[in-house]
Amino acid sequence: MAKGPSALRMRLSRPGAARLIGAHNALGAKMAERAGFDGVWASGFEVSASYAVPDASIVTLTEHLAIARSMCDAVEIPVVVDCDTGYGDAVQFAHAVRQFEAAGVAAVCIEDKQFPKLNSFVDGRQELAAVENFVEKLRAGQRARRELMIVARTEALIAGCRAEEALRRARAYADAGADAVLIHSKAKTFDELASVALLWDRATPLVAVPTTYYATPVEALESIGIRIIIYANHGLRGALAAMEQIYAEILRSGSTASVESRLWPMKTIFELQGTGQAVAEPAPAESR
Amino acid sequence: MAKGPSALRMRLSRPGAARLIGAHNALGAKMAERAGFDGVWASGFEVSASYAVPDASIVTLTEHLAIARSMCDAVEIPVVVDCDTGYGDAVQFAHAVRQFEAAGVAAVCIEDKQFPKLNSFVDGRQELAAVENFVEKLRAGQRARRELMIVARTEALIAGCRAEEALRRARAYADAGADAVLIHSKAKTFDELASVALLWDRATPLVAVPTTYYATPVEALESIGIRIIIYANHGLRGALAAMEQIYAEILRSGSTASVESRLWPMKTIFELQGTGQAVAEPAPAESR
Amino acid sequence: MAKGPSALRMRLSRPGAARLIGAHNALGAKMAERAGFDGVWASGFEVSASYAVPDASIVTLTEHLAIARSMCDAVEIPVVVDCDTGYGDAVQFAHAVRQFEAAGVAAVCIEDKQFPKLNSFVDGRQELAAVENFVEKLRAGQRARRELMIVARTEALIAGCRAEEALRRARAYADAGADAVLIHSKAKTFDELASVALLWDRATPLVAVPTTYYATPVEALESIGIRIIIYANHGLRGALAAMEQIYAEILRSGSTASVESRLWPMKTIFELQGTGQAVAEPAPAESR
Amino acid sequence: MAKGPSALRMRLSRPGAARLIGAHNALGAKMAERAGFDGVWASGFEVSASYAVPDASIVTLTEHLAIARSMCDAVEIPVVVDCDTGYGDAVQFAHAVRQFEAAGVAAVCIEDKQFPKLNSFVDGRQELAAVENFVEKLRAGQRARRELMIVARTEALIAGCRAEEALRRARAYADAGADAVLIHSKAKTFDELASVALLWDRATPLVAVPTTYYATPVEALESIGIRIIIYANHGLRGALAAMEQIYAEILRSGSTASVESRLWPMKTIFELQGTGQAVAEPAPAESR
Repeated sequence: MAKGPSALRMRLSRPGAARLIGAHNALGAKMAERAGFDGVWASGFEVSASYAVPDASIVTLTEHLAIARSMCDAVEIPVVVDCDTGYGDAVQFAHAVRQFEAAGVAAVCIEDKQFPKLNSFVDGRQELAAVENFVEKLRAGQRARRELMIVARTEALIAGCRAEEALRRARAYADAGADAVLIHSKAKTFDELASVALLWDRATPLVAVPTTYYATPVEALESIGIRIIIYANHGLRGALAAMEQIYAEILRSGSTASVESRLWPMKTIFELQGTGQAVAEPAPAESR
Repeated sequence: MAKGPSALRMRLSRPGAARLIGAHNALGAKMAERAGFDGVWASGFEVSASYAVPDASIVTLTEHLAIARSMCDAVEIPVVVDCDTGYGDAVQFAHAVRQFEAAGVAAVCIEDKQFPKLNSFVDGRQELAAVENFVEKLRAGQRARRELMIVARTEALIAGCRAEEALRRARAYADAGADAVLIHSKAKTFDELASVALLWDRATPLVAVPTTYYATPVEALESIGIRIIIYANHGLRGALAAMEQIYAEILRSGSTASVESRLWPMKTIFELQGTGQAVAEPAPAESR
Repeated sequence: MAKGPSALRMRLSRPGAARLIGAHNALGAKMAERAGFDGVWASGFEVSASYAVPDASIVTLTEHLAIARSMCDAVEIPVVVDCDTGYGDAVQFAHAVRQFEAAGVAAVCIEDKQFPKLNSFVDGRQELAAVENFVEKLRAGQRARRELMIVARTEALIAGCRAEEALRRARAYADAGADAVLIHSKAKTFDELASVALLWDRATPLVAVPTTYYATPVEALESIGIRIIIYANHGLRGALAAMEQIYAEILRSGSTASVESRLWPMKTIFELQGTGQAVAEPAPAESR
Repeated sequence: MAKGPSALRMRLSRPGAARLIGAHNALGAKMAERAGFDGVWASGFEVSASYAVPDASIVTLTEHLAIARSMCDAVEIPVVVDCDTGYGDAVQFAHAVRQFEAAGVAAVCIEDKQFPKLNSFVDGRQELAAVENFVEKLRAGQRARRELMIVARTEALIAGCRAEEALRRARAYADAGADAVLIHSKAKTFDELASVALLWDRATPLVAVPTTYYATPVEALESIGIRIIIYANHGLRGALAAMEQIYAEILRSGSTASVESRLWPMKTIFELQGTGQAVAEPAPAESR
């Protein structure tokens, strides 16, 4: 069965947008696969949040790579890694590309901001890299990869540029060989994204992250040519909301009785962990 | 302000059972602290689940230590680490003790099963270690630690032994210098635990993990002398239940609109990550 | 070009014993390749020494795996990993096998001692595992691997058993499907090894580690049927001897002038690191 | 006994320059301590060489930190970590400072080049950071540390600037609170360094790295006011030279007999690893 880059390419050859959901560990990837998503987004925001550090180029390649590797070990669906600005310049990105490809990752995504980055939804400095520098970085990644897909993400709209600049950058990245182009937007509606997507004149597939324009249904995104939709962090945000309520209730009520119906049974987690396999494996007699 | 072992000792000197909740990363520790728990249980089950591998001595000391360290960096409340059987014999456990203490951990917990272990709630081999061997391991840990507390956990009831054996083991561990003794039970009610706890005749504090006997309120546990209550994995189980529903709904409805009210806003996560601090820190002019 | 398991299998199909040398990091692997060795032995002793911890199951799978992975990234010659007793029982070893195979390793070696192990050349407990348990572990490894070779190492002679027991164990492991069998010996001459090897009646290749019987030339080992020779730790021991002298001389003489002729130029190390490639990679204009 | 920052400060309060030697793992740190050096330099060049990757901001904070931590666990003498450009801007450096301090490190050193860096002895881009940006980074480090010393390293001479510029930068860093200032030079003699050092008019101690001007004795460096001398990579270079000869000889001669006199006995390494302690620790009866 196809895995990694070929699985993602195969999915893109079929009709309908591929839908990915964010995760920050192997279990999250399992949950995505189990629910029926087309792939996993190894979100930089989720990973940095899981370490309780700002989403600002603090989580290292080593840490992100270990997570991506454990995800690829755990699931069959493609894993797409959010590489922020690519861990440096061309040399450092090329190194990262080789490592992520060896880990079994389907695609990496790099954005055209300057290192060190700051999360796109945080008010603060959101400086874009020069187009020629980012194109150089993309090309270094292409020389380093074998089959891994490279997604170029433009933060032009995030940085306050107009649609023309986003379009100019998206075209430059597609022309430089990017396998897909992500147009990031933090507008409340998808009009901003559409203002770029409707002018798209390249064969390179477009990617969208409907975090703020969440009311937009899949069909609407597909109608403006979006081929990959990333729900970037909804698992984490839903998990934390549930945990907050459950924790308050446990402390208030003095037991977990009133929240038991809102908890997964341990048995279901044991299954996701492949526990049966561990039990079935005959143990040496001396430790029986 | 007291952190680590002294914070936990101080809490135990105050009335009422300390309540800890399970976590598998720094963000989970933050959630525990924010909710008002007295401490964090760095659960072996949660950590192995997060890696999507069986809870069977597969997660390594390196991995568990990195998680414990990031928890201690993130919170002020004490972190208690579930060390399973202690990563080997006396020499290996002593090594682990030194590493966890340097990481800022308040206490480690080791159980009297044989390496490699299998999760206590899984039907399968649950062989106990010989008491004298486990006591030797405890003593090696005590020689290696400076202030770190060492919790001895007996799996006698889990392994199907009677209350007498659990009591015999608990006494042996307390007499060997354990700082607390955890009597693990998977009975549906707390009667089994009580049958041991009510006979407790040592000053060493007792610890309980009310996973199966969840209807037992704090007061009941306190009334039989329990000083630390560990809700070992309720955050993870609540998070997965919520994620399962949200994922199904996103795929079904074609957008996240109908689940938005069940999600934390990104802003709240940014706060937990300390993002404000990162933005406030003046960046070098050249990257502005 | 063949790498990993197929490269090692190919080498074994050619005449003459394959010669491997020990290493504990990627640079050591590079040195082995550059000198012309047939492969690298990712020595458990060298790795634990590099961490300055006893060779006693203290270095974790995570640590050993990261080293093996960086070796496989660095060289074309096969990397054989010394897995000690295999990190636990059958389940844990099967997990390790999958991880090492994914890292690009050619073969792993496990020994028939009990976990946790102690270095074979240290006087102390050297307890053997029961044959049936070790065979079960070998079989679990075989079920878990795709092409990775599994070398079974018997410590029977190390543990003070006679040649008959070593032979009995070697045969059992070969019959269970081991891809090679290592007969470990700490005798001063190779007579002890020969007393087993000359009775060898299986097609499975034999492996020798001539640390104590170092005067034995390749031809002599080949004449008794040895197909792989591992010089397990000579690089480290030579490096430390040289460093000791150089350090004393620097401190004594007050400069490095008198030792410069005994040092590699930095330029040669730059070459081994692939620095030219990093310089050649065009950097983004903004950081020029 | 004083360790870490206080041990280094105490050493600087005594007469005579402190002499440090480079290392890339805990064993190297042990060798430095055993020989009598005043401290260890956790060299970025050595560490990247040990991974066989270019010295160009490819080794991550995670990797360097793990090495520094294992060094601090292994030795009593102070460990000074070469942090290159500090892993990013002010926010990222502050994060690194907290991590290295928790690891037990005595001092970190950052250089005033732009991220990603290239080794100072490689011909290629060696662009300096703007003074005000570097000062801002230094200050962020100071706000983040408790006792850790921060060494500011100017690459002005490496980048081809004149002594005036090196002096201007050194003064700015000292005035911004750097605990020591390293004037890096790749001249063949120490005249270039002296041209800066003899004009030094601050109380902040100066640091030198006599790699190219190796003929300069300690006394000469002390006479121009140098308080810390770093022999940055001589252990690695000596080790590789010895290994190269030994490897060639083993392959040529067909055994290790002719090189045995140039090797450390295993026993000496066992001692450095603390093996005796592991053997002495009584093992549980069941594994005897």
